[in-house]
Amino acid sequence: MDAVFDDEEQQRAREDAVTEQVVASFETSTDPRYEQVMSSLVRHLHGFIRDVRLTPGEWDAAIAFLTRAGQITDENRQEFILLSDVLGASMMTVGVNSPPRSDATESTVFGPFFVHNAPLIGLGDDIGEGMAGRPCYVHGRVTGTDGSGLAGARVEVWAADEAGFYDVQYEGHALAGRAHMFTDENGRFDFWTVQPAAYPIPYDGPVGDLLRAAERSPMRPAHIHFMVVAEGYVTLITHIFVAGDQYLDSDAVFGVKPSLITEFIEHEPGEAPRGHVVDSTWSEAVFDIVLAPER
Amino acid sequence: MDAVFDDEEQQRAREDAVTEQVVASFETSTDPRYEQVMSSLVRHLHGFIRDVRLTPGEWDAAIAFLTRAGQITDENRQEFILLSDVLGASMMTVGVNSPPRSDATESTVFGPFFVHNAPLIGLGDDIGEGMAGRPCYVHGRVTGTDGSGLAGARVEVWAADEAGFYDVQYEGHALAGRAHMFTDENGRFDFWTVQPAAYPIPYDGPVGDLLRAAERSPMRPAHIHFMVVAEGYVTLITHIFVAGDQYLDSDAVFGVKPSLITEFIEHEPGEAPRGHVVDSTWSEAVFDIVLAPER
Repeated sequence: MDAVFDDEEQQRAREDAVTEQVVASFETSTDPRYEQVMSSLVRHLHGFIRDVRLTPGEWDAAIAFLTRAGQITDENRQEFILLSDVLGASMMTVGVNSPPRSDATESTVFGPFFVHNAPLIGLGDDIGEGMAGRPCYVHGRVTGTDGSGLAGARVEVWAADEAGFYDVQYEGHALAGRAHMFTDENGRFDFWTVQPAAYPIPYDGPVGDLLRAAERSPMRPAHIHFMVVAEGYVTLITHIFVAGDQYLDSDAVFGVKPSLITEFIEHEPGEAPRGHVVDSTWSEAVFDIVLAPER
Repeated sequence: MDAVFDDEEQQRAREDAVTEQVVASFETSTDPRYEQVMSSLVRHLHGFIRDVRLTPGEWDAAIAFLTRAGQITDENRQEFILLSDVLGASMMTVGVNSPPRSDATESTVFGPFFVHNAPLIGLGDDIGEGMAGRPCYVHGRVTGTDGSGLAGARVEVWAADEAGFYDVQYEGHALAGRAHMFTDENGRFDFWTVQPAAYPIPYDGPVGDLLRAAERSPMRPAHIHFMVVAEGYVTLITHIFVAGDQYLDSDAVFGVKPSLITEFIEHEPGEAPRGHVVDSTWSEAVFDIVLAPER
């Protein structure tokens, strides 16, 4: 190296000094947790830039990527959640917050398709109206880890139709395939919907480009989202996945856990639960949910 | 820990497995550099989430922060560059790409206020028209590290007015305070402008909230931006800072380097360079620029 250049040790010291200066700038915070989070964020962000020797062109590309993600995000499209999902940041956040216990239902990613204020339904109601797909009856029981049924637990569900679309992706955004209900005195819940299908996460934006550059598939295996809330218990955010789906081993957002794979049993046309008479085949999924007590 | 919980080693192994799964998903890329960058990004992002045990609420806040940054970003406002700047990511990128050599002018952050297609001016022209501030004459010479003057080098400049605003922040966005010019046969350049003032980076958006949470100042010391391009030389992106500014030690974006601090000499009213007769005090700054040859 020419004499006019700093040697590697000097260069390293200079780079260290930048990181320490930025970390120090967060020490004025009166919130110790904020300081801890920002300090770690700065160290990892700087570590990334140094490890890969990020070029100015790559920095430009990162700014342009985030700008495009911002432009495509609106009330029905959340590119930043997609980004977190495809980078495994969502599953890692789930993982550090849900140390698995062998006796409670496992959690998985929240995803970008949740909608606040989904309607309240009665037990056994059909949320699949207006959606294309095979009728599907889902039922189960919410209990604590001691096996006791939890009455009045709030069970919220949302899922895509047989074409892989959520209601928020429909033209006109009709509400369908999502609702919340409360368990009965024994902790039981049930509802009709349509059997969900595998689908690609939205890939017409920057996250799609990110996947294409890695030749990664945007597909998610078919699933139904659940969020279950009961007083005194840890809120559970999870899915059930349809057993046999071809994408169970390559979920674009890394959300599959073996314990969440559920048989969707096929039934012949005819009489079905809750007084339904179905003139096509229909399916049935049982999901018994065990909540962990708050610690 | 209860028997129903995995122990720390099992938990660590589970978290490692998530990271390895995501890293492996980028191994399908046919571009080795892309795989390298994404792999490092994933490892550092996951390392951050694990180190701080990021909570679901903090993840929500991060998504909301990025969403707001996207919403406020438009052709005149670039919140993602501001974010990179206040986290020191911009200066670290400058640092890893510009190993300092003792014989060339140092670089600093690009900032969010650059505009493409700023007008071409003749040497000695005034770009301060329509801006408030003390007239300021800036001149210097562009040379290589061997001392030879570089004829026809492209010198682009942009700066804020005495109120600390760039033209793009004006109502109606009149163009002012920015231009590009070409050096003469000896490498000389000169122009009139107004003396810049210290200013806060835009802090009415999420980046402002980030600074407030740390009780960090949004102020930048007064400076003029330069970008200098000459064939066969490394493009220089830098500032000159006004000596004596009270914010030189607390630049919100960590851009100050001692070698870039420049005296702005105050002159009495009267005759001034390029035929100007100034009826107020005016200032003069000399900036000799040394470019490093491409390696």
